[in-house]
Amino acid sequence: TFSRGVHTVTLIPGDGIGPEISTAVMKIFEAAKVPIQWEERNVTAIKGPGGKWMIPPEAKESMDRSKIGLKGPLKTPIAAGHPSMNLLLRKTFDLYANVRPCVSIEGYKTPYTDVDLVTIRENTEGEYSGIEHVIVDGVVQSIKLITEQASRRIAEYAFEYARNNQRSSVTAVHKANIMRMSDGLFLRKCREVAENYKDVKFTEMYLDTVCLNMVQDPTQFDVLVMPNLYGDILSDLCAGLIGGLGVTPSGNIGANGVAIFESVHGTAPDIAGKDLANPTALLLSAVMMLRHMGLHADAKKIETACYDTIRDKKVLTKDLGGNSKCSEFTTEICRRVQDMD
Amino acid sequence: TFSRGVHTVTLIPGDGIGPEISTAVMKIFEAAKVPIQWEERNVTAIKGPGGKWMIPPEAKESMDRSKIGLKGPLKTPIAAGHPSMNLLLRKTFDLYANVRPCVSIEGYKTPYTDVDLVTIRENTEGEYSGIEHVIVDGVVQSIKLITEQASRRIAEYAFEYARNNQRSSVTAVHKANIMRMSDGLFLRKCREVAENYKDVKFTEMYLDTVCLNMVQDPTQFDVLVMPNLYGDILSDLCAGLIGGLGVTPSGNIGANGVAIFESVHGTAPDIAGKDLANPTALLLSAVMMLRHMGLHADAKKIETACYDTIRDKKVLTKDLGGNSKCSEFTTEICRRVQDMD
Ligand SMILES: CC(C)[C@H](C(=O)O)[C@@H](O)C(=O)O
Ligand SMILES: CC(C)[C@H](C(=O)O)[C@@H](O)C(=O)O
Repeated sequence: TFSRGVHTVTLIPGDGIGPEISTAVMKIFEAAKVPIQWEERNVTAIKGPGGKWMIPPEAKESMDRSKIGLKGPLKTPIAAGHPSMNLLLRKTFDLYANVRPCVSIEGYKTPYTDVDLVTIRENTEGEYSGIEHVIVDGVVQSIKLITEQASRRIAEYAFEYARNNQRSSVTAVHKANIMRMSDGLFLRKCREVAENYKDVKFTEMYLDTVCLNMVQDPTQFDVLVMPNLYGDILSDLCAGLIGGLGVTPSGNIGANGVAIFESVHGTAPDIAGKDLANPTALLLSAVMMLRHMGLHADAKKIETACYDTIRDKKVLTKDLGGNSKCSEFTTEICRRVQDMD
Repeated sequence: TFSRGVHTVTLIPGDGIGPEISTAVMKIFEAAKVPIQWEERNVTAIKGPGGKWMIPPEAKESMDRSKIGLKGPLKTPIAAGHPSMNLLLRKTFDLYANVRPCVSIEGYKTPYTDVDLVTIRENTEGEYSGIEHVIVDGVVQSIKLITEQASRRIAEYAFEYARNNQRSSVTAVHKANIMRMSDGLFLRKCREVAENYKDVKFTEMYLDTVCLNMVQDPTQFDVLVMPNLYGDILSDLCAGLIGGLGVTPSGNIGANGVAIFESVHGTAPDIAGKDLANPTALLLSAVMMLRHMGLHADAKKIETACYDTIRDKKVLTKDLGGNSKCSEFTTEICRRVQDMD
């Protein structure tokens, strides 16, 4: 937990619409008088000693000190051989849990209502090991790596999350009928950890079955925990249910409080610099960040102002169905935040 | 293509509700006077020489002769160490393409309308290689195997399918940003094959993006082609969009005309033997089979009778929202088939 007083947060504005939506978030935080001081950093990877790609030392040093980052979209890969910045950040700070709450937004019409679930994705191994080989010409293998330690750690995170967020069930998502050893290990660890959380209901389900049930009735799900790739898929699927990446927050959580919160949409180069972007995903990610830092009152205030603005339908960006500019949408949220005082 | 005259088809009724829905299909085929003679076989795996699991010789021999199978649900695994029957059948007959058309059914309400797409799944390798190892205690790897040959073969199948079924586009679904070598190889083969089908539009999309776009607007998709696991996931997701596995047909296609068509739902032991099952998925799979055999008029007739019965809403099984028995639903379809003569 974090001490009282002013907190430093590393801000990674990102590319394309990143700077605009970051400015929007900073304005809203200022209106809400959130005790946060931003330290802006660029994370574009550089080649370190030995030719290894790494994030610039100023960014690394800031994150090591602040422990908390807020990040806009990054264009990746920048060049051939350049690593995915998202993956490099997850790796550099060992951000082992990717947490994406998907909650229906009142007033924003989608085919589904009352969605209220959280995907928790193992963020460090599995299909993202990066280990691949050509066996013989025309025959390639990719290695999915599952470890006991990472599986237990993510299972524990999921159950702790459920308990601390008044959620009643955790579903482990797997294909242990096919990948008996790897998904089998993951599943076994989930079962073991479940034993220590008798207050949280535990179920297990095949990934394909989850996908089918999800589009038929997402309200049956609560917290879902799964290996890396399955989380990549399911988190996007679930985002689609509530209106897409423009309104979905995300957090990458590591040990000892270290975390980076980010909007997971793209850089939208076509509208960049035109004051047309929707800052909601980054703003709701910043709200997740506030809760992570224990700043619950500030989080609630900003979240309410954002949701009220959307429900009210008067000042909305284009993608949300309105005609307003990013700056107008931002001003409206600021106004509501100030009205709450 | 198949000769005129009576064709033999190997019928694998399966477990649970399998026999009831197989009987329903046979009755409807009889009413439609389809020139097919059924050869019923049990495929439950037995231990062959050297302890290898295999399907019984009478079933193998029948399939080798008839080339065409229709299969109800099988309970798997039967016992520890017993293989998945579905996987064993795919392997035994090298059924390399799993084809699942997902088409909205008029009169059967779901959150989506006008879905009309086909998932084509590579059915022999990828994440289903079955190769797994414990590296050290607590560290497991599963191998995803992608070959040039299987990738080219499935890509060719997808483009041929598109061309022969008046479909205008093929989308390759991949995660080549993460699995650069394996999914990269798959994608490269799709691109190469696309060069030979200039009449079919080719696009590529990340699996996570497909999932997100799919739940937002499935009408944008046409034919989708992808590695094994992605197909497992996407085909179930798409089935969910149109009402679930109770109404979705499936075909497993091999070389030289060999194919097994199957309902992909479970054995539903709770309602087995009670005349409550819905035979639609198996019937529509049998319709796919007729088209595969070139019996287009018979296919059209039965398909129309089935869709008309559902649209009419008077005689429906429980899962479809009605009160009728399996046998009543079947009789209604038979009546409509006979009325068409
Ligand atoms: C950009 C890409 C590397 C990333 C992933 O595959 O994990 C993205 O899809 C995500 O979900 O954060
Ligand atoms: C039963 C299971 C082995 C199978 C699979 O994973 O392929 C099923 O989900 C399918 O889609 O046919």
